[in-house]
Amino acid sequence: MAKIVTMGEIMLRLSTPGYEKFIQADSFDVNYGGGEANVAVSLANYGHNAYFVTKVPKNPIGDCAVASLRKYNVNTEFIAKGGERLGIYFLETGASMRASNVVYDRAHSSIAEATASDFDFDAIFDGADWFHFTGITPALSDGAAELTEAALKAAKAKGITVSVDLNFRKKLWTSEKAQKVMTNLMQYVDVCIGNEEDAEKVLGFKPSGTDVTSGELELAGYQDIFKQMIDKFGFKYVVSSLRESYSASDNGWSACIYDGKEFYHSRKYNVRIVDRVGGGDSFAAGLICGLIDGKNMKDALEFGVAASALKHTIPGDYNLVTRADVETLVGGDASGRVQR
Amino acid sequence: MAKIVTMGEIMLRLSTPGYEKFIQADSFDVNYGGGEANVAVSLANYGHNAYFVTKVPKNPIGDCAVASLRKYNVNTEFIAKGGERLGIYFLETGASMRASNVVYDRAHSSIAEATASDFDFDAIFDGADWFHFTGITPALSDGAAELTEAALKAAKAKGITVSVDLNFRKKLWTSEKAQKVMTNLMQYVDVCIGNEEDAEKVLGFKPSGTDVTSGELELAGYQDIFKQMIDKFGFKYVVSSLRESYSASDNGWSACIYDGKEFYHSRKYNVRIVDRVGGGDSFAAGLICGLIDGKNMKDALEFGVAASALKHTIPGDYNLVTRADVETLVGGDASGRVQR
Amino acid sequence: MAKIVTMGEIMLRLSTPGYEKFIQADSFDVNYGGGEANVAVSLANYGHNAYFVTKVPKNPIGDCAVASLRKYNVNTEFIAKGGERLGIYFLETGASMRASNVVYDRAHSSIAEATASDFDFDAIFDGADWFHFTGITPALSDGAAELTEAALKAAKAKGITVSVDLNFRKKLWTSEKAQKVMTNLMQYVDVCIGNEEDAEKVLGFKPSGTDVTSGELELAGYQDIFKQMIDKFGFKYVVSSLRESYSASDNGWSACIYDGKEFYHSRKYNVRIVDRVGGGDSFAAGLICGLIDGKNMKDALEFGVAASALKHTIPGDYNLVTRADVETLVGGDASGRVQR
Amino acid sequence: MAKIVTMGEIMLRLSTPGYEKFIQADSFDVNYGGGEANVAVSLANYGHNAYFVTKVPKNPIGDCAVASLRKYNVNTEFIAKGGERLGIYFLETGASMRASNVVYDRAHSSIAEATASDFDFDAIFDGADWFHFTGITPALSDGAAELTEAALKAAKAKGITVSVDLNFRKKLWTSEKAQKVMTNLMQYVDVCIGNEEDAEKVLGFKPSGTDVTSGELELAGYQDIFKQMIDKFGFKYVVSSLRESYSASDNGWSACIYDGKEFYHSRKYNVRIVDRVGGGDSFAAGLICGLIDGKNMKDALEFGVAASALKHTIPGDYNLVTRADVETLVGGDASGRVQR
Amino acid sequence: MAKIVTMGEIMLRLSTPGYEKFIQADSFDVNYGGGEANVAVSLANYGHNAYFVTKVPKNPIGDCAVASLRKYNVNTEFIAKGGERLGIYFLETGASMRASNVVYDRAHSSIAEATASDFDFDAIFDGADWFHFTGITPALSDGAAELTEAALKAAKAKGITVSVDLNFRKKLWTSEKAQKVMTNLMQYVDVCIGNEEDAEKVLGFKPSGTDVTSGELELAGYQDIFKQMIDKFGFKYVVSSLRESYSASDNGWSACIYDGKEFYHSRKYNVRIVDRVGGGDSFAAGLICGLIDGKNMKDALEFGVAASALKHTIPGDYNLVTRADVETLVGGDASGRVQR
Amino acid sequence: MAKIVTMGEIMLRLSTPGYEKFIQADSFDVNYGGGEANVAVSLANYGHNAYFVTKVPKNPIGDCAVASLRKYNVNTEFIAKGGERLGIYFLETGASMRASNVVYDRAHSSIAEATASDFDFDAIFDGADWFHFTGITPALSDGAAELTEAALKAAKAKGITVSVDLNFRKKLWTSEKAQKVMTNLMQYVDVCIGNEEDAEKVLGFKPSGTDVTSGELELAGYQDIFKQMIDKFGFKYVVSSLRESYSASDNGWSACIYDGKEFYHSRKYNVRIVDRVGGGDSFAAGLICGLIDGKNMKDALEFGVAASALKHTIPGDYNLVTRADVETLVGGDASGRVQR
Repeated sequence: MAKIVTMGEIMLRLSTPGYEKFIQADSFDVNYGGGEANVAVSLANYGHNAYFVTKVPKNPIGDCAVASLRKYNVNTEFIAKGGERLGIYFLETGASMRASNVVYDRAHSSIAEATASDFDFDAIFDGADWFHFTGITPALSDGAAELTEAALKAAKAKGITVSVDLNFRKKLWTSEKAQKVMTNLMQYVDVCIGNEEDAEKVLGFKPSGTDVTSGELELAGYQDIFKQMIDKFGFKYVVSSLRESYSASDNGWSACIYDGKEFYHSRKYNVRIVDRVGGGDSFAAGLICGLIDGKNMKDALEFGVAASALKHTIPGDYNLVTRADVETLVGGDASGRVQR
Repeated sequence: MAKIVTMGEIMLRLSTPGYEKFIQADSFDVNYGGGEANVAVSLANYGHNAYFVTKVPKNPIGDCAVASLRKYNVNTEFIAKGGERLGIYFLETGASMRASNVVYDRAHSSIAEATASDFDFDAIFDGADWFHFTGITPALSDGAAELTEAALKAAKAKGITVSVDLNFRKKLWTSEKAQKVMTNLMQYVDVCIGNEEDAEKVLGFKPSGTDVTSGELELAGYQDIFKQMIDKFGFKYVVSSLRESYSASDNGWSACIYDGKEFYHSRKYNVRIVDRVGGGDSFAAGLICGLIDGKNMKDALEFGVAASALKHTIPGDYNLVTRADVETLVGGDASGRVQR
Repeated sequence: MAKIVTMGEIMLRLSTPGYEKFIQADSFDVNYGGGEANVAVSLANYGHNAYFVTKVPKNPIGDCAVASLRKYNVNTEFIAKGGERLGIYFLETGASMRASNVVYDRAHSSIAEATASDFDFDAIFDGADWFHFTGITPALSDGAAELTEAALKAAKAKGITVSVDLNFRKKLWTSEKAQKVMTNLMQYVDVCIGNEEDAEKVLGFKPSGTDVTSGELELAGYQDIFKQMIDKFGFKYVVSSLRESYSASDNGWSACIYDGKEFYHSRKYNVRIVDRVGGGDSFAAGLICGLIDGKNMKDALEFGVAASALKHTIPGDYNLVTRADVETLVGGDASGRVQR
Repeated sequence: MAKIVTMGEIMLRLSTPGYEKFIQADSFDVNYGGGEANVAVSLANYGHNAYFVTKVPKNPIGDCAVASLRKYNVNTEFIAKGGERLGIYFLETGASMRASNVVYDRAHSSIAEATASDFDFDAIFDGADWFHFTGITPALSDGAAELTEAALKAAKAKGITVSVDLNFRKKLWTSEKAQKVMTNLMQYVDVCIGNEEDAEKVLGFKPSGTDVTSGELELAGYQDIFKQMIDKFGFKYVVSSLRESYSASDNGWSACIYDGKEFYHSRKYNVRIVDRVGGGDSFAAGLICGLIDGKNMKDALEFGVAASALKHTIPGDYNLVTRADVETLVGGDASGRVQR
Repeated sequence: MAKIVTMGEIMLRLSTPGYEKFIQADSFDVNYGGGEANVAVSLANYGHNAYFVTKVPKNPIGDCAVASLRKYNVNTEFIAKGGERLGIYFLETGASMRASNVVYDRAHSSIAEATASDFDFDAIFDGADWFHFTGITPALSDGAAELTEAALKAAKAKGITVSVDLNFRKKLWTSEKAQKVMTNLMQYVDVCIGNEEDAEKVLGFKPSGTDVTSGELELAGYQDIFKQMIDKFGFKYVVSSLRESYSASDNGWSACIYDGKEFYHSRKYNVRIVDRVGGGDSFAAGLICGLIDGKNMKDALEFGVAASALKHTIPGDYNLVTRADVETLVGGDASGRVQR
Repeated sequence: MAKIVTMGEIMLRLSTPGYEKFIQADSFDVNYGGGEANVAVSLANYGHNAYFVTKVPKNPIGDCAVASLRKYNVNTEFIAKGGERLGIYFLETGASMRASNVVYDRAHSSIAEATASDFDFDAIFDGADWFHFTGITPALSDGAAELTEAALKAAKAKGITVSVDLNFRKKLWTSEKAQKVMTNLMQYVDVCIGNEEDAEKVLGFKPSGTDVTSGELELAGYQDIFKQMIDKFGFKYVVSSLRESYSASDNGWSACIYDGKEFYHSRKYNVRIVDRVGGGDSFAAGLICGLIDGKNMKDALEFGVAASALKHTIPGDYNLVTRADVETLVGGDASGRVQR
């Protein structure tokens, strides 16, 4: 059981029931989630000692966010309290050719306005094995970018392995700003996760011939870009999930990894989607789990892909499957037969 | 922003939640809708000045129906109040090879017993650009058929473009009665919408070699029938949606149009169905919107098909997508990717 | 209208709403069901005089189980009252490659601890045409196995046709125990229903080359096994449903039957699954209905397969379709078109 | 266990959840009920052999109504099938000083258009002990009034005790019409139930000094009116429930009975209301049960009052308490303490 | 039908179902509301031409807020679109001695950051009869305070009657700031609504001997303060609702008015509370309606008190009763009897 | 922050929504709770380090029970895993004079069959300040009674203060058995909580002149019994909550305490009940919190009474109020006014 630290934003997610449009909804389903929090929950579900570090307001909504993590066994002792509000995102779940619609209301959140002084990084990283962050947190504000770098420095000072999920969010910052901030942070990173769009928008690596909306993808450009990334930043692994968006209801889902020597493309799952939000996070968590557990990069990748394929069948941001559930799927049983 | 008038019945729709059978239901989902009302809502969503004309009882259920239209920006000022009751239909949503089941309880409704004296057609059509009706309204009662003709005369007297959706309903009248009534009304019509079954049952045009339950369709007969229809009635356009019923869960969905010269078949969408009721109405509305906006017949058809493909993903009778949503799909992005 | 008796356990079924995991659920959907009770409900829906025989506790939960049967027209007059508790099973509905998860809490139930003295078999079987049981009941306890044999003896004494659904449940007993008990009971059976796994685990017939999780199946071994079964036990018919588990969301569904002379494989349905629990029971009920109604074995099989294909679209254990619904599907209309 | 027949209308009841107004409701709670059906359910709950006679349409909504009765053990074998529709009523539950709002949509129902030829009264009343009807049924239509008299004649021909609940409904008929029809029917009645307003509006007996909306009542006039009623019609008992409407949330609830000699006023309950619809019916059923069971008139009245006080705490039209529940309350325990 | 303008904030209200605490909620009920919007809805329900002026973000959540008003017949044509976000408030409904808990998340809302240039006051007030605002809007921000004064100047320039509901919100500003801003705005006001606490905190009038939490109130101080207020600001009427908080479930509710000559205390209602949020707004709306309709001050006050008593029984911020509902209660019928 | 240990059973609670009877319920609300678990949650909410010790099955239902505790900050590290099942209780919530109905299905639970070897009491009680148990646990089984004594011995060996809530459950054991087992356990107890019925049934102290169903209570007998109890067992405090059951909807609620010298009766609250299950547990927890915090016995009692009065307004077994909420009520504000 490793100690793994993730840091970022946890938001209140308000989604319409069924496939209702916002304007039809008389109620919203309530969940909590966010890129790094989702990773922490997955890792806790796999039996690791997962810490989530953030700042939430001192009010019942902040308390609810923390309780949602605690329920799933995430260690919340380093969550700071204060600031103005918890970020919110509204979600209208799509179907078939109707895309899901996300409305962000996350400005002015407690974590966006937090500073390094809110956290005791020495204690946070004491005995830790891994630190994971995403490109969302530095995008929240300049302060959050500084906070992220402070954490990274503290983690590296203790020799902790660092992973990042690039996660470009065009509603939060421009590609230019992203590249300026993120390029600097890459010096601390060992494992870099991100798809072609992320690689281009966040780090400036230009993919060739990929049209993300076409429902097709090409592995062609990936290995080339991965190589460039390792050459430039010295990552130990570069990894990407590969989503083929046939529609909002059906996706192809696989991933690839590169260690500077070998390029490996995982098994592909065709998933019937219940809830795809958090799919990428569950992949990152599965991969990290595999690597921490000492799996080789292929097995770790397969664990991550299977874990995240399963996530697509679970409502809410969090991936609530167990290690055993993932291993059954990795072992080849995708039949969905009832066990009784 | 054009002024568009539709006239017909709005009903209370009571549907079972999830995929429950009627006998399982402890609650019914409440929606309001009807062929022409659904068209009005779509047109209001696209930014047009849509008027819906009907008669509803002076009671809270009638008020709810009107409020549902007002919420979606339909102009309700010419809705008459009075009569006995609001028509109701019960809906049990099917899945896979189990068909949806509709139970009508619409006899004696206020609109079925309304007369021309309930409406001030001079004011209603003042400044209007388009009038749309369907074959359902004249099927409600002899009085409703007379009312429809009165409206058509008033509309044509003002030179307003008229469209009809033939919409044969075998539970409302026989083919014989339909042909007698509807053939007469075709003199007022500019744009005629209706599939093969409608063309045969409502107007007596015999299609050749089509088996609507086989899940396959043939474009063969369509052009021939369309030509006959234009020859006989002088329509400007004849249009039909084309539904391939693979199952209650999955349909192929496209459309074709003919202007006496050119026959055009649209792109086909394979839709995962959330709610197919109102699919045809959303197609009519999209087509009308395209024609009013000055699109050529192909682009108008594609707009209509895309709009109605999206409708299949939305619960309730009304199509609640925006013009921008439709244009994204027409533009080719059916990937359903989340935008964030 | 035949009198048909089924005997076994009825359980309280508690399932999570939507696709929630157990840990997410703030409420459970409440249904009642069980292998033999499900058969009784189907037969009552087809117009037969179906009796369900069991024992339930004298408390409101037992009363609810009985009321659920009565609502669907099952005759409940021979249900004994007493004992400790009603068996429960918890159900977490899967999707895509995530399997449904069943947690049994059925030990110590009233029926598991019932004895023959709780029932007046003479009255129960008076005028009856058919008796159906499954391999679940004898698996509940030694007492339940004795009770089952007592019922079988009473039924055969009156010359009643007997069917069994082998239904191996590995959480209830071992294959060894099953074979010991069930082999003895086969002497009373006329119609034996069970798939390859059942045939092997319950009766010891070894199938060859079938991997039930692979999503593929082979008819190869079936005929051979069926022949062995008839040779050994003298069944009039041996029958099996054939499930191809592509995923928890999509299954292929067909069946085969053998009468010692002819082997027949039915039409295959590709079903989009709403709820697959009770699918096998609905097949057995449809087959029994067909045979009682005097259909030949092929038509009876097709009736059973169509009935159970439809069951997969209905929430809860019970198959709530009517005879007419099944006949429409048998007649070839799987289009799921709305009738209106 | 006596055989008791009730005849009348069963309706689909659609009520808003919580305290929502109609215009807020996105769903309606579904129940079935009606004056005489409610009485039948109560009597079945008390262990009697209760028959409900009505006519419902041959469609799934009619089937649901019948199933709701069967679930609660009412014998439905004499329910005729056919006609146009099931009557509906919409219910908006009030609170505090906001009254509940009922919208009827019951015209043209199957029972309103039924005739005596739909029913085999000889079989219906064979071996029956009691027949109960209300003033609602004859108010539905002239045909329903004739049907009621036909049933009454058949019942009296067999010497069956007859009870009526006068139940004036001003939305169904005028006082003049009511008096004309009902006065004639009183010749068949043994036990007459009705409050002051009913006595005046239905039978023309003028109460003195009662203002039903004032939240107060006076026993003064009751005995006098009851005496007049017995003098004129020779009833064995005249009975009335006494509701003190403090508000839509809190009522005082008692009853009085007179047998021509003694006037008795029951214990009064102050009820916190969950659902008051069907309160009067549950009182009638409790009283009838008491009289059939051979209780003296005071004890029968107390049983009826306690039964109906409990009904006010149960959602839906039907009173679902058991005989034991009523007896506990009659025995004096109104403390509502949990038993565990 | 008068034209009445209100201006202020409309918020998304997210409330827990039933009496759940925030930490228990898996869903939030969705409503929209705010002090001035609530007044507009009430006035529209009474048949007036009510305009609500605000600014909402150009996103689906803003659209939902506008649609909620349109549904209830409020004129929304002058609602500006733009800015950052829609204000939110979270509501946990209390019961008995547990108070409701409100968590505001309203900073940075579009209206808080709007300026006078967002609105065409000349058009807005064209032909208007009345303008209503509250002390909440100027409390949102300095800009909102300036906006309010700009509106007031425009209204007074057209000779429009102006009313204010003082509505002190201690979470929005201090008493000092409130007095500074609001004292200046009082020059435009004709009708001033506010209770003792408002009078003190917003305008500096010191009440004597009132303890708002004691569940008792004293009319003593009111007349004295009202006189001071009229002396200082020249109001035509000073009005206050009077809430006696027995508990979160039961309140006494009345009001008083003073015109410089006569002090009048209304009838008092004891209300069983379903939802008390918006109670004060519904009072203001009822009073305004009464005054506009030409009632004398006593009758107008009674209309307002009855209207707001009824509001306490309706979920959501908006008072959805009709003019007829209010008049029935004013007429003395608080019995809550079902009309049927 | 004290370390407090509680040990006992945690059950799955399945309750009908609203005021539905079991037979009406299509879903059950899911909560987890039990006498000692409820105490642990309260203490965690007040900021203490609360440990709950039990045994749950190794299945998802057991996991859910543990997660529910973890969510509310209870330390679950000493919960053993194994055994057959989690106990269940079904709850039908009453109203007015209809009592809530509890159906237990708790036999054969993991904790009922646990033994001392499942727990490391040395670690459990290491550094603990307080141990609380109830009379329910020893009633579960002889093994559970032995387990309880083993825990008590271990606790006393470390000098830990021990409290008991006598909690007689007549459905679990007889008074004779209870007295035999519990009298022995009293030697370990410092603080004894229990009402008159408990004192009599569990310990044999005969109260005089109390009729628990009469809705009245007499303090008379309490002091006398308390004195006897202290004389016999040497308790430091004897405490009882005092419930006046006016109805299932309204209760009077207070408590009394005696330390051998002074008898004190607390303030009495009249509570409008949302959910009374767990009311006694929340009282015990509040009292324990007060005593641990060093309050004098009167203040501790008032804290306990106020805490438990608030509990009655919260759905589910757990009391979810904060220390601040309780202190506000203790401070005298029971007005339920919204704070905003």
